[in-house]
Amino acid sequence: MKVIALSGSLRAASINSALLRAAARLAPPGLQIEVFHGVGDLPLFNIDLESSVPPAVVTLRAAVSGADALLIASPEYAHGVSGVMKNALDWLVSLESFVCKPVALLNAQPRAHFSDTALRETLKTMSATVVESASVSIQLTADTLTEEGMLASPPVAQAILAALTDLRAAVLEGGSRQGPTFPVR
Amino acid sequence: MKVIALSGSLRAASINSALLRAAARLAPPGLQIEVFHGVGDLPLFNIDLESSVPPAVVTLRAAVSGADALLIASPEYAHGVSGVMKNALDWLVSLESFVCKPVALLNAQPRAHFSDTALRETLKTMSATVVESASVSIQLTADTLTEEGMLASPPVAQAILAALTDLRAAVLEGGSRQGPTFPVR
Repeated sequence: MKVIALSGSLRAASINSALLRAAARLAPPGLQIEVFHGVGDLPLFNIDLESSVPPAVVTLRAAVSGADALLIASPEYAHGVSGVMKNALDWLVSLESFVCKPVALLNAQPRAHFSDTALRETLKTMSATVVESASVSIQLTADTLTEEGMLASPPVAQAILAALTDLRAAVLEGGSRQGPTFPVR
Repeated sequence: MKVIALSGSLRAASINSALLRAAARLAPPGLQIEVFHGVGDLPLFNIDLESSVPPAVVTLRAAVSGADALLIASPEYAHGVSGVMKNALDWLVSLESFVCKPVALLNAQPRAHFSDTALRETLKTMSATVVESASVSIQLTADTLTEEGMLASPPVAQAILAALTDLRAAVLEGGSRQGPTFPVR
């Protein structure tokens, strides 16, 4: 089971990116998480470019299409979704394989809710399936703002692992729900 | 009085960009509107780049700092602010001259409200002054989706002119409110 992780921040020391890297290392058996590194290579969305889709967009779409689920962590800037994250999603609108794609949203700023709410609305509008039980706020402290700090903190590591375990269950359940629609003999 | 206009769409045939060009031609006396053409040249926001600010960002910040007001028209994608628009705003967060900057939001999709609401929240968080009387929805029809069509339509042209007149009044009022705070002798 393959999960693509998208960070909404390009900052080298991004807490959201660290959270996704920590998640990749904490993935429970059967779940493989790949942090997608091409978000910052995407051009700004322009539908006129669809006539000759830029390579970075082709790469993103292929990664998403090939994944069983998405894991998203994105900062909130000025009470809104980061432009970086929304730009990536704008390139995925109307992607056929996005329909019913299970998505887990990790929120590293529990007191921030504008971006989280807006991301859910956008993902639902794009026909993705937001897995609520796997979409959690992770309370971080000064000691747990890095990948290593998160892995070393039992409460943080456990919260991440619990979310991933729920995401795995949702993918398995969705897969069986979307199984053969004809009688199997 | 100078107004910088920002479009949230990079499409050549963008209705929002057409609306801003029409506004530039309809500007009432004393108001000069310049459509900013560098939104698509901006890199994706990355605070790490602040150590050597990219030229396109320098240009945007200088244009905004030199303007008495902003005029924004942006499409709604998947019930959210376009990544293009939010990316431009992300580069303006913490810009000192953004504080109390009068902003008018034109909405070319009256039935769309998610982006409009989110933009207001973000602009207010950035300490801009959203001029409500100048922030209007413009009802467009099949004949008025182009700059020329908008100019040729009395109801559309009048709606744009009314918004701009209100924006001009708000800038004048703000200017007098922000006048000398010491006794003038």
